[in-house]
Amino acid sequence: MISADIQPYIDGVLRHDRRMISKTITLIESSLPKHKKTARLVIDQLIPHTGKAIRLGVTGVPGAGKSTFIEALGMVLVKEGYSVAVLAVDPSSVRSGGSVLADKTRMEKLSTHENAFIRPSPSGGTLGGVASKTRETMLVCEAAGFDVVIVETLGSGQSEVAVASMVDFFLMLMISGAGDELQGIKKGILELIDAIAINKADGDNMQRAAFARKQFETALHFSAPSSPNWSPPVLLCSSLELTGIQEIWDVVLKHRGKMTSTGELEIKREKQAIDWMWFLVKEGLSEWFYKNPYVKTMIPKIEREVEEGTTAPTTAADKLLFFLDEK
Amino acid sequence: MISADIQPYIDGVLRHDRRMISKTITLIESSLPKHKKTARLVIDQLIPHTGKAIRLGVTGVPGAGKSTFIEALGMVLVKEGYSVAVLAVDPSSVRSGGSVLADKTRMEKLSTHENAFIRPSPSGGTLGGVASKTRETMLVCEAAGFDVVIVETLGSGQSEVAVASMVDFFLMLMISGAGDELQGIKKGILELIDAIAINKADGDNMQRAAFARKQFETALHFSAPSSPNWSPPVLLCSSLELTGIQEIWDVVLKHRGKMTSTGELEIKREKQAIDWMWFLVKEGLSEWFYKNPYVKTMIPKIEREVEEGTTAPTTAADKLLFFLDEK
Repeated sequence: MISADIQPYIDGVLRHDRRMISKTITLIESSLPKHKKTARLVIDQLIPHTGKAIRLGVTGVPGAGKSTFIEALGMVLVKEGYSVAVLAVDPSSVRSGGSVLADKTRMEKLSTHENAFIRPSPSGGTLGGVASKTRETMLVCEAAGFDVVIVETLGSGQSEVAVASMVDFFLMLMISGAGDELQGIKKGILELIDAIAINKADGDNMQRAAFARKQFETALHFSAPSSPNWSPPVLLCSSLELTGIQEIWDVVLKHRGKMTSTGELEIKREKQAIDWMWFLVKEGLSEWFYKNPYVKTMIPKIEREVEEGTTAPTTAADKLLFFLDEK
Repeated sequence: MISADIQPYIDGVLRHDRRMISKTITLIESSLPKHKKTARLVIDQLIPHTGKAIRLGVTGVPGAGKSTFIEALGMVLVKEGYSVAVLAVDPSSVRSGGSVLADKTRMEKLSTHENAFIRPSPSGGTLGGVASKTRETMLVCEAAGFDVVIVETLGSGQSEVAVASMVDFFLMLMISGAGDELQGIKKGILELIDAIAINKADGDNMQRAAFARKQFETALHFSAPSSPNWSPPVLLCSSLELTGIQEIWDVVLKHRGKMTSTGELEIKREKQAIDWMWFLVKEGLSEWFYKNPYVKTMIPKIEREVEEGTTAPTTAADKLLFFLDEK
């Protein structure tokens, strides 16, 4: 019976059982067809219990100190009584062999706090797959009652778009450098973010940070804001000296207040839900296509013919799609 | 009989009959299912006659003077005895109401030259659709014997990627401005291009153009080149004074020589053919999905349920994909 399979996961998550939360996430990250099916059933049951958390995305250039910043912010939050889950989207770790949060010692204090839950990035898979799993993991954490879910991304343009499509507030962490900070920002990213925080604004860095702030403010001035009711601010902080962290959280709450009162938060989440549905439909359709025995057999042959120029790409596509006519 | 339908198109194109070339392109741009089917059959028959033209893509910021530049280049080419076709990819014209080349007077001289053929952008449709049709139109022109096909894009990031995926040489046209030219360049675009030409390098502009050139050279220095055997040069030109145009064409030919001798041109075109095939497969698969009667009926209902939060996006996707299991 299916319900017997999924009930322990659902019950465990809903009663905030950390072992069962972890087990449920592992189930979600599994690529075994059997697990995928069970995971889907679990998610379906958990979704009615989601929607109450504050979903915060954090991106930034490598070296901006994202982990230390998230630990500092997380510690502020748990001290205020919030429970916090930290997740990561990082398909690039597959290539580089590293994993964003795998080295939990990077968030030493936060990872041992009873009100915090840190989960490294699922390894392997495409960006779409990883992002889809991060979204489902986020929902598990929400159903488990975490008040704040922080999703970290390693700032490839695509993973930033993916994270922006699942959070309420998207923060970009930067550092001050040689004065050419702006060129490190991918075009289009400024339109996704709700605030910029310049980290490591401490000691000798203060002046450079203030200069960088001006630059970012100018850049934001010329980019389309994510909402007509919100002008993304540029903030300074130091994860080392723990300054400016509380202020960033205040901005998140202020943004939330505004987005809730204008109804934008609800509309944003509705749109995110629809986008996610279509993402899943596309993924499901293409999975179904590639596992068709006819397609599987034809692909290597047809690709070779196209490369050799003996079959036109148009004819090749028709050949691969041929079996659809019989459906 | 099908062959009776398509034969006049094929024969007309192959004997370089301008009226039939235009009619064939109109057939390709039609969105009627019947026309689409005929168009596909025509393309299949024309593809063996393609591959000999030099495929040149031109992008650039609005105001860079792309039309005047293309006219100047086109006139240089027809005077050297080349026959030239000019096409445009511009889905944005749908929104703005304008069309890149619709106003043919913008290429007054070239458009009346017997060895030139100018075709405005197909109006309507998605970028993917427009790009797909531009690619097929390019092949029609090649089969008709045009020596050079110039594809103009109105520089939205996506249409630049689409054009780069169908040409042999991709030129970016820029102008010198207030010293912040680099910020007008979308990230990732520099990796697609084979040369930059700074237009309007005449009169009072000369000094600024020389300065802009230095800036672009630096930017190119820090970006990954499109080929290990080619460093994209930065050139100066004036479509007004007709200076530097011949030099740009010489660079295109030099690039072609190098890419041919290293075998890169062949590999690039093979890859483009495979990419195109997969684009068509995805397009065909999704068309087939959306025209399914079950899906058509379900979409409005399911989207509403997801927006209202009564159905989870995961469940909704499963419902839409449900009919696949029966196939």
